[in-house]
Amino acid sequence: MTDQPFRGVLAPVLTPFTADLSPDVARFTAFCRWMLAQGADGLAVFGTTSEANSMSADERMGLLDALIESGVPGAKLMPGTGACSIDEAVRLNKQAVAHGCGGVLMLPPFYYKGMNDDGLFAFFSEVVQRVGDSGLKIYLYHIPPQTATPFSLDLIGRLIKEYPDTVVGLKDSGGDWSNTDAILKAFPGFGTFAGSEVFLLDTLRGGGAGCITATGNVNPGGIRKVFENWETPEADALQAAITKTRKIIQARPMVPALKAIVAHYHNDPAWATVRPPMVPLDAETTKGLIADLDADEGFTIAPAKLSDAAE
Amino acid sequence: MTDQPFRGVLAPVLTPFTADLSPDVARFTAFCRWMLAQGADGLAVFGTTSEANSMSADERMGLLDALIESGVPGAKLMPGTGACSIDEAVRLNKQAVAHGCGGVLMLPPFYYKGMNDDGLFAFFSEVVQRVGDSGLKIYLYHIPPQTATPFSLDLIGRLIKEYPDTVVGLKDSGGDWSNTDAILKAFPGFGTFAGSEVFLLDTLRGGGAGCITATGNVNPGGIRKVFENWETPEADALQAAITKTRKIIQARPMVPALKAIVAHYHNDPAWATVRPPMVPLDAETTKGLIADLDADEGFTIAPAKLSDAAE
Repeated sequence: MTDQPFRGVLAPVLTPFTADLSPDVARFTAFCRWMLAQGADGLAVFGTTSEANSMSADERMGLLDALIESGVPGAKLMPGTGACSIDEAVRLNKQAVAHGCGGVLMLPPFYYKGMNDDGLFAFFSEVVQRVGDSGLKIYLYHIPPQTATPFSLDLIGRLIKEYPDTVVGLKDSGGDWSNTDAILKAFPGFGTFAGSEVFLLDTLRGGGAGCITATGNVNPGGIRKVFENWETPEADALQAAITKTRKIIQARPMVPALKAIVAHYHNDPAWATVRPPMVPLDAETTKGLIADLDADEGFTIAPAKLSDAAE
Repeated sequence: MTDQPFRGVLAPVLTPFTADLSPDVARFTAFCRWMLAQGADGLAVFGTTSEANSMSADERMGLLDALIESGVPGAKLMPGTGACSIDEAVRLNKQAVAHGCGGVLMLPPFYYKGMNDDGLFAFFSEVVQRVGDSGLKIYLYHIPPQTATPFSLDLIGRLIKEYPDTVVGLKDSGGDWSNTDAILKAFPGFGTFAGSEVFLLDTLRGGGAGCITATGNVNPGGIRKVFENWETPEADALQAAITKTRKIIQARPMVPALKAIVAHYHNDPAWATVRPPMVPLDAETTKGLIADLDADEGFTIAPAKLSDAAE
């Protein structure tokens, strides 16, 4: 197995949209730079939280070009490059490799349901072979609540065996710790990331690489603290604090809630815009969310902290 | 409500692929012309059975261009133009309108789950307004087994009310007759198609427009007979026959089975190719399927009939 290109806390970066729903390049690159300044170990741009599948391949590729041009190092990026079609997945992956991205986070083809492991293996094989570049480092994106297409232990094992230097890790967004635990035990040395910081400490104790988490967009400092201190006596208390913050946020629809939080604490109302079929948080829900976060000590971009933390 | 551009039996046309998995333009256009010669009332190219979501937008658009260039009239076509992103859906719909397609079959944005009707309404509104052409005639594609994103009666009603000359019909591939029945009763005059010929007679008796069915690719004559005779005393017996044929086919994985059938009866083994994540039918399953169909009197492209029916 290859050396791991990523370890720690990554965020699937929110994608800002302008009033006419176009990707907002300037806000996007500024936010990515702010995330890295906050200590993010990498940026999983174009994930589920990024509304990536609400953008065409061309839009996503345009944003990645702009991000690289803005000076963000490719090595810090793990763009989402999954697609339902082999040709689109190949195109996205080739661009990521050309930009020197440290890795990519690849969804399975998610339209058809009930596909068997042979078919999924064939899909990934085609993509890997067509990209044909040793710079490709794939993290499998296991997120059955959205895809209904899980990566079984058997499929993961087959992919690692066939492509040991290319299939290097996985993000488990299934929300089921027993599955993450089984992956950690079956594939030591594989770059396994929890899909939520709720499982960060358990993942690190199990030999995993860290977490790639939606709330990393708004609570980067708190989550990093667990990663930095996971072997200390404070680890469990720090984990309890970030779990508490997570639960406050996920009591609302996650992506609109995160955008409302950024809009509020960054003093930039344009951030609240989402692309249909998502709908923005209504004013009352936003008010309740902000009140809950203001009262939460573990939340790390509360106003007093934001000015210190700004780039 | 607008005049209905389609009525009768339509097929979501299978997409042939070459050995290197590229769309096979020559086989595709030849098969589309054969389908029309068999009496298909329209071709719902780029549906689920077409493996449309295993192709990029560029690949689908290339095939549609080629089909029009080959002389197939746009008025006979109902291409699938749904996508998870507004910009890709707009692009596909604009092309369909430019080619004079009689209608389009539009999936909802299918990646995110649990989106509410306000968000789905906003998505369709954006697409309709951005296409901005009275030639756009949308059939909503209700297929919760794949999308987990149903069109509720309320959402259908809101779309018809807001866009009465654009949102003209629906294909119900939910497999639940009570839902089709509810739509027929709630929206008389709306172009409601069953997603399977199993419900064809019931749909016609309920005032619906017909069916758009996968097995239309291989049993066009049998299914047409029900449509042509639905008000005669023979209707129930004819329906029973096509239901029996359907059940033989759908006892196997549908798309690989249909391609194996075309490969066998059209004497063209290349047709069996599917794109990953689908896998072709194995030899033994194919043999059993063909034996069952050879023994089925209602099946209409059995060898003796194929030579008569050829273009």
